[in-house]
Amino acid sequence: MTTDKILLAHGSGGRMMRELIEKTFLPILRGGYAGLGSDDSAVLPMPDAGEGARLAMTTDSYVVNPIFFPGGNIGDLAINGTVNDLAMSGATPLYITTGFIVEEGFPISDLETIIRTMKDAADKAGVSIVAGDTKVVDRGKADKLFINTAGVGVIPGGIAPSASGLRPGDRIIVSGTMGDHGIAVMSKREGLELGVDILSDCAPLNSLVRAMLGVCPEIHALRDPTRGGLATALNEFASESRVGILVAEGAVPVNDAVRGACEILGLDPLYVANEGKLVAAVPPECADAVLATMRAHEYGRDAVIIGEVTDTNPGKVLMKTFIGGTRIVDMLAGEVLPRIC
Amino acid sequence: MTTDKILLAHGSGGRMMRELIEKTFLPILRGGYAGLGSDDSAVLPMPDAGEGARLAMTTDSYVVNPIFFPGGNIGDLAINGTVNDLAMSGATPLYITTGFIVEEGFPISDLETIIRTMKDAADKAGVSIVAGDTKVVDRGKADKLFINTAGVGVIPGGIAPSASGLRPGDRIIVSGTMGDHGIAVMSKREGLELGVDILSDCAPLNSLVRAMLGVCPEIHALRDPTRGGLATALNEFASESRVGILVAEGAVPVNDAVRGACEILGLDPLYVANEGKLVAAVPPECADAVLATMRAHEYGRDAVIIGEVTDTNPGKVLMKTFIGGTRIVDMLAGEVLPRIC
Repeated sequence: MTTDKILLAHGSGGRMMRELIEKTFLPILRGGYAGLGSDDSAVLPMPDAGEGARLAMTTDSYVVNPIFFPGGNIGDLAINGTVNDLAMSGATPLYITTGFIVEEGFPISDLETIIRTMKDAADKAGVSIVAGDTKVVDRGKADKLFINTAGVGVIPGGIAPSASGLRPGDRIIVSGTMGDHGIAVMSKREGLELGVDILSDCAPLNSLVRAMLGVCPEIHALRDPTRGGLATALNEFASESRVGILVAEGAVPVNDAVRGACEILGLDPLYVANEGKLVAAVPPECADAVLATMRAHEYGRDAVIIGEVTDTNPGKVLMKTFIGGTRIVDMLAGEVLPRIC
Repeated sequence: MTTDKILLAHGSGGRMMRELIEKTFLPILRGGYAGLGSDDSAVLPMPDAGEGARLAMTTDSYVVNPIFFPGGNIGDLAINGTVNDLAMSGATPLYITTGFIVEEGFPISDLETIIRTMKDAADKAGVSIVAGDTKVVDRGKADKLFINTAGVGVIPGGIAPSASGLRPGDRIIVSGTMGDHGIAVMSKREGLELGVDILSDCAPLNSLVRAMLGVCPEIHALRDPTRGGLATALNEFASESRVGILVAEGAVPVNDAVRGACEILGLDPLYVANEGKLVAAVPPECADAVLATMRAHEYGRDAVIIGEVTDTNPGKVLMKTFIGGTRIVDMLAGEVLPRIC
């Protein structure tokens, strides 16, 4: 049977699923994709751990709408998202699994494009896609395609960044402009005419993190501010570490086009998702070295110190305004941008 | 805000998601659930590997319909499915991640029930649920609830069952009756009145596998025949190992009620999914010891030898019929039971 549409039988476990895997997945993922069709699990070398090493493990499901957006698609989003979650724990990402939930009728050619994007993203990040699963649901029971990724990495001894690790005096550094991913997806979804293309910042941050830890192994905290944006990440830092965070208004870099779109949409870029940016809490004596290292890296060119950690106002994030006052920057309360990742 | 329904804001990454996790997930999963809300990844001890050990990694998404069925729900299905995939590679399952895709409006009380079932299943299998992710999609864009699980385990040195490992003379053993899970789900979905409750066989098989490998570390192949059923698993064995498999008609155990339901539905139990059964290819000199060990285990009481591996008819599964002939048992071709797991 020749068809460019996914059928229920492609999720059957039988011959058509095998053909889909052999024709669509394996030619692209060749050389790393075990555990599909042949055996139930991927069998992998034990990571070379070294003294004090720990395993990092994480998962995310991706339901972004639309699945193709300026600067990426659900495929590289799913790979980079899990690579970044591992990197933020200080881990070297190694292995990734993929779970596809496909709506009956989805074009196989689109699936191929997405798998190819995933493979490219995995290669760029230096991780292996080691196993996968495909389920098909009847038309109308899912929205085109959802992808889950789970990842495993190794955290070297002596490295332990954590949301609970902030200390008063730490400098808060962001790696670049805030809000690009969320606005790129939103503008595509809403058919917004902005006069300028805003691209998602979707990118793997593991090599940036490795460089940063190279000059300052004791970095206290790392986070990629995805859903909920920078404001939510900083609030989690403040809450978990029982410290205050003071950020300077105007210090947070935002692209002009993103700022313009946020004004049209009534959004604050501090709450808009990023997929290729990080925020770090760095001991003051390391801050200049970390900043210089970040600026020398392709994904940290616009890195900047936006504030610092205080022993006053524990659990709160404050912004010092231009006119000399302060205001509270709260965690995201409702939902401003559903299905952004 | 008090509500028993999942809202889009529960997937926002902000305050309501945090509350959902703190009120619904953490009280049940306490004591093993890292990487949620606090940090991006779970940080875990490196598995104690030993000489020749390898890592096993696998994933599956679950889209079963209905999500509650006789003998289980999507929660224990998702845990046991991944535990079993790891076990079939000879691994000791250790860590499991969970990804929830929830339809807006889903009852939080049902979510709680499902999470509780997952925790019980994980405890029974001796694995830790270490991380999770929750996404919410708008009403009508997913069918109630989909769950992805990914798992990591360790395969001890010297253990290497594989679908490509069968050798002529091996005995084919199944651990019990075939088709219970598929028929349990199907009868609930179709509102079939069978006069008798057919329960899913959903169960963790890792301790059964450990016992089997204890008496015969060189077991050649293990598989849990889920989607596509026993017939598809045996065809994959025959194809991957380039051997023939000869099964005796009537040797495959099937519950009377399952057989009756299959007749009503026009199904062959050989193609119906199981979620707590395995099929093994065992060297002949081990077969009696493995069989005795299986029968002494709660999940192998009905274990039986159903056939053997031949050097004739490579790549094919044949059934010896009652009247003395043979017929080919093919791989599942279309889709008989969609969304069975």
